[in-house]
Amino acid sequence: MYPAERILMGPGPSPVSQRVLRALGAPTLGHLDPQYLAIMDEVCDMLRKVFRTSNALTFPVSGTGMAGMECVAVNLIEPGDEVIVGINGVFGTRMKDVMERCGAVVHALETTWGEVFTLEQISAALAAHPKVKLLGIVHAETSTGAHQPLTGLAELVHAHGALFVVDAVTSLAGHELRVDEWGIDAIYSGTQKCLSCPPGLSPVSFGPRALVRLDARKTKPQSWYLDVSMLRKYYNGGGGGRVYHHTAPINMTYALHEALTIVLEEGLDVRIARHATMHQRLRTGLEKMGLSYIPSRSLHPLNCIGVPAGADDAGVRRRLLEDYGIEIGSGLGPMAGKAWRIGLMGHGATIRNVDLVLAALREILQR
Amino acid sequence: MYPAERILMGPGPSPVSQRVLRALGAPTLGHLDPQYLAIMDEVCDMLRKVFRTSNALTFPVSGTGMAGMECVAVNLIEPGDEVIVGINGVFGTRMKDVMERCGAVVHALETTWGEVFTLEQISAALAAHPKVKLLGIVHAETSTGAHQPLTGLAELVHAHGALFVVDAVTSLAGHELRVDEWGIDAIYSGTQKCLSCPPGLSPVSFGPRALVRLDARKTKPQSWYLDVSMLRKYYNGGGGGRVYHHTAPINMTYALHEALTIVLEEGLDVRIARHATMHQRLRTGLEKMGLSYIPSRSLHPLNCIGVPAGADDAGVRRRLLEDYGIEIGSGLGPMAGKAWRIGLMGHGATIRNVDLVLAALREILQR
Repeated sequence: MYPAERILMGPGPSPVSQRVLRALGAPTLGHLDPQYLAIMDEVCDMLRKVFRTSNALTFPVSGTGMAGMECVAVNLIEPGDEVIVGINGVFGTRMKDVMERCGAVVHALETTWGEVFTLEQISAALAAHPKVKLLGIVHAETSTGAHQPLTGLAELVHAHGALFVVDAVTSLAGHELRVDEWGIDAIYSGTQKCLSCPPGLSPVSFGPRALVRLDARKTKPQSWYLDVSMLRKYYNGGGGGRVYHHTAPINMTYALHEALTIVLEEGLDVRIARHATMHQRLRTGLEKMGLSYIPSRSLHPLNCIGVPAGADDAGVRRRLLEDYGIEIGSGLGPMAGKAWRIGLMGHGATIRNVDLVLAALREILQR
Repeated sequence: MYPAERILMGPGPSPVSQRVLRALGAPTLGHLDPQYLAIMDEVCDMLRKVFRTSNALTFPVSGTGMAGMECVAVNLIEPGDEVIVGINGVFGTRMKDVMERCGAVVHALETTWGEVFTLEQISAALAAHPKVKLLGIVHAETSTGAHQPLTGLAELVHAHGALFVVDAVTSLAGHELRVDEWGIDAIYSGTQKCLSCPPGLSPVSFGPRALVRLDARKTKPQSWYLDVSMLRKYYNGGGGGRVYHHTAPINMTYALHEALTIVLEEGLDVRIARHATMHQRLRTGLEKMGLSYIPSRSLHPLNCIGVPAGADDAGVRRRLLEDYGIEIGSGLGPMAGKAWRIGLMGHGATIRNVDLVLAALREILQR
């Protein structure tokens, strides 16, 4: 088993540095070992910095990004709760499905895939459904590359007494994201995007309003594995000491520790600026080739472009993979066969990768 | 971050070999990369060998052992279903909780912690609750070290038209376990016990009767993340090709691939016999020191003994950890403060470890 050294420029996983790969292979500790608990505490502290939050309840869920989405949903929703979900791609669609499985009555706020929501649209949705308890929205729609602005939303949502929930799987550490300042009540992300750690953990954070909701629950969350009332006793300890819940993914925690250390060494602002610069460099090159972006407001870490007329979608991706060892993503859902998704995430957002993928596309597309 | 090289002789995680740690750090592939899918297919094939099953639907759930338990529960239970759960320790207790959260009406079949269930007890429970749709039992109760015999159970359960569900977290690859021959309909395990892989994945297998139940569901499983109707399209592909579900934990899959390769190189029978031999060697040594086993029928990979009168539970464990770098487990639930749990799992079930832990205990306990 010798996996090839791919250049991962798809929608994630993103390239993982040697430092992180080496951390993965450090000796396995027990999940209650004082050394491991210290490492986990540092991971939670670093996650707070990266989320820009002081939320005590900030930790990595023991699963991939979708487990983080489900963790937020099962803990904050009780059967019969009305919620609003913004749907403009795969992940909003999934959020609706996940929340319905929790017994929520979901009011879908929809727009064209690739577009984002305006404050007016969200305000109107809240006015139409005054009893909603939660509004969920995707900050970075990985399926379309659309970048949803979040400022000003919390005020609208909180005015209705609802919680503001954000999917930040592809934006954390690659885009401006300010959990406390933007009034986000619960948020989840993944390790395999702009943190450049392998997939396997899903950082989440719950703010004070979410904690009030958790404490007021009349029913147990439907998931034992993701029940935050138990998880917080393991991750945050507190006066009563640590309480064993499940066996955390020890070595993945090492990798996340190293990945977060790298993020903070670079500096969050510098890293976010680097994602912007690399996005602009790629964009200029792609547009020079006559390729165009699909979303109205593109994410920096994920660039979703139309497959040009006459090009063979799968054939081009296969040549990129086989001749260059470069992975890019295909379109999803209604964009299948019509879009390519080029990721510039974390360790992969470099001049080297941008110029290489541009050169490869020029060669393959003969442009 | 330099984790110490512990000798993990607790209830798991177990010691991880250098081969597996190195596999963890191999270059990250995309989750839809043909190379990765080939590795995943090999993992599923090897899991079938280790479970001794031909079940097509055999794969590692992207979470730790408790995620496997939850995966089996959310897929096989619909609200209102009556089930029987055998409770003789922490994990049976948890199975009841997990299944109740799925809407099951759980009939608890209880016995003293450390004891196991007889065919007669199970037969009587089935007779008392003729409408049950599932019986769940723990093969290897990690909290007490009790080893539940499983032969003959399937016939009783199937005669009632119910499914036979087994928790094999601590027994897989360390004890005799024959999924097909023993008529097990659904089973889950963990990677961090006798497979000697870090925690983070939970091997599961669903047999033909379970598939009938899955296909007959009237409701969606309450978990999207663990919904087997979607997972089977990713893991098993089949005529319709692979369908993306979630981003699998790539590097953990490498580790499991290497761990399973090592199991099959050694040979499953040889490995199981080694666990028996090492258990006997430890047992002889402990009993010579006047220490006694708590369960009536002890597991080989997990040895649960009483804390001797006059010994300081936490103090002894601390000295083992600090002076010897050996981790053993404490008692859980009603056994807190009264039991030690010594694991001899996978890579850790060696003469070297057995004789070392005996020497260390002799020194610390002055016996």
